[in-house]
Amino acid sequence: MTSEELYGSILKKRSFLCVGLDTDIEKIPQHMLSYEDPVFEFNRAIIDATAKFTVCYKPNLAFYEAESSRGWKSLAKTVKYIKDKYPDIMIIADAKRGDIGNTSDMYAKAFFSMMGVDAVTLSPYMGRDTVEPFLNYEGKWAVLLALTSNTSSEDFETLRLEDGRYLFEEIIEKSAQWGTIDNLMYVVGATKAEMLEDIRKIIPNHFLLVPGVGAQGGSLREVAKYGLNDRCGLIVNSSRAIIYASDGLDFAKVAGEKAKEIQQEMSELLG
Amino acid sequence: MTSEELYGSILKKRSFLCVGLDTDIEKIPQHMLSYEDPVFEFNRAIIDATAKFTVCYKPNLAFYEAESSRGWKSLAKTVKYIKDKYPDIMIIADAKRGDIGNTSDMYAKAFFSMMGVDAVTLSPYMGRDTVEPFLNYEGKWAVLLALTSNTSSEDFETLRLEDGRYLFEEIIEKSAQWGTIDNLMYVVGATKAEMLEDIRKIIPNHFLLVPGVGAQGGSLREVAKYGLNDRCGLIVNSSRAIIYASDGLDFAKVAGEKAKEIQQEMSELLG
Repeated sequence: MTSEELYGSILKKRSFLCVGLDTDIEKIPQHMLSYEDPVFEFNRAIIDATAKFTVCYKPNLAFYEAESSRGWKSLAKTVKYIKDKYPDIMIIADAKRGDIGNTSDMYAKAFFSMMGVDAVTLSPYMGRDTVEPFLNYEGKWAVLLALTSNTSSEDFETLRLEDGRYLFEEIIEKSAQWGTIDNLMYVVGATKAEMLEDIRKIIPNHFLLVPGVGAQGGSLREVAKYGLNDRCGLIVNSSRAIIYASDGLDFAKVAGEKAKEIQQEMSELLG
Repeated sequence: MTSEELYGSILKKRSFLCVGLDTDIEKIPQHMLSYEDPVFEFNRAIIDATAKFTVCYKPNLAFYEAESSRGWKSLAKTVKYIKDKYPDIMIIADAKRGDIGNTSDMYAKAFFSMMGVDAVTLSPYMGRDTVEPFLNYEGKWAVLLALTSNTSSEDFETLRLEDGRYLFEEIIEKSAQWGTIDNLMYVVGATKAEMLEDIRKIIPNHFLLVPGVGAQGGSLREVAKYGLNDRCGLIVNSSRAIIYASDGLDFAKVAGEKAKEIQQEMSELLG
């Protein structure tokens, strides 16, 4: 998927919403547990209820790995379901991988060739080696952690370098040279919305993946104010606030309503 | 496993070798492919041939994920095999995970509760949140990336902070306060052996996991010179140089000989 195609999808749906599939078997409605693959069945219901309002799904790998090989199967089925039924929706594997060259090749193979997702989140700490193998796949994306939404992001991400800039600024500036606006995106937490203004000075044209709206307290309006560019340039993720909006029989319906609510706010913000 | 137990194992075997199980289905001997689970059968043969000479196995997750849920099964079987047959050998899942609190909980569950390994490598970029859930498991370890062996480690790890120190030094210093020498270890690449001297000033007593000896060109003697402390304090990993030492029918035997060779050098270095 190119950035132009992603922007096309945003315009068509009047939405830049990403639904995070952080599917925890201990949090899904009780009645789902009678299915052979409750995680997949939950995801399928959520996907069918929200697909009209979203341009992206983001399964978080941790939740699937916590169920071991069974979880990987649920994830593979979920990805295939989205690709078959909603081929215009981007799938980001939120995996935060990052390793040296020959190992990074294997991760890229795991996610792009085997699983078939469009994008993978990566940790930048080990440098270019960790990112490059992902950039060699036509139409696929690396999504680099820059400034995250957790409180301990201040431990290292916002350290000052000797020239006075923040570490995350140097990471964005250097890594932006490794790829293009068609294969490189950055994670910037919604809880740091005012920082988006400075980040937009470094990368005016890249897409940003913004988590932290909803359960983590970030404001969509603030994010849009500082982060929108002339081709939207934002994908805003919401996970728990949508997928666990109800834990009853109506969970999918309520998730759909919640996604629609956010989509309508986004439609206004897109102007 | 405590650091005292790990040191006991090192003294008993006169070895601080870790064998990296970076098992690539495209690199294992052809004749293994007729097995139902070639990756597990390869690992089993390598483990039985090298267990006498090693205190640690380190499967690299990327190689298993590249085979999707099937790879996770091979990995789970491998971990179970080591735990059942060689319970005194430490198992480090080289996963380089790192995510915010509630997600990090799930990763810790995946590796410690479900898979049952002793340790997991983690990327420090997102700060304390990403590490803490792993420190809450009795007898388990977080192994933090500090200074890695790849060339692009210079992109960010060795950036100078405003006080003149390297980023990786600040990461070591700050994170060392989050855990103890019994649940926190650091990755320091063998290709940066001379840096070990400065690192030992910050953390004289922590164990260091040192990759990069062998295929990546690091010298064991240099690593020992700068990194050994009074309870050894080192685990040195070798992957490809051992497990792919031969691609014939004799692959396990040759891997065992190679491991023995390194163990004998280590025995001398332990004095």
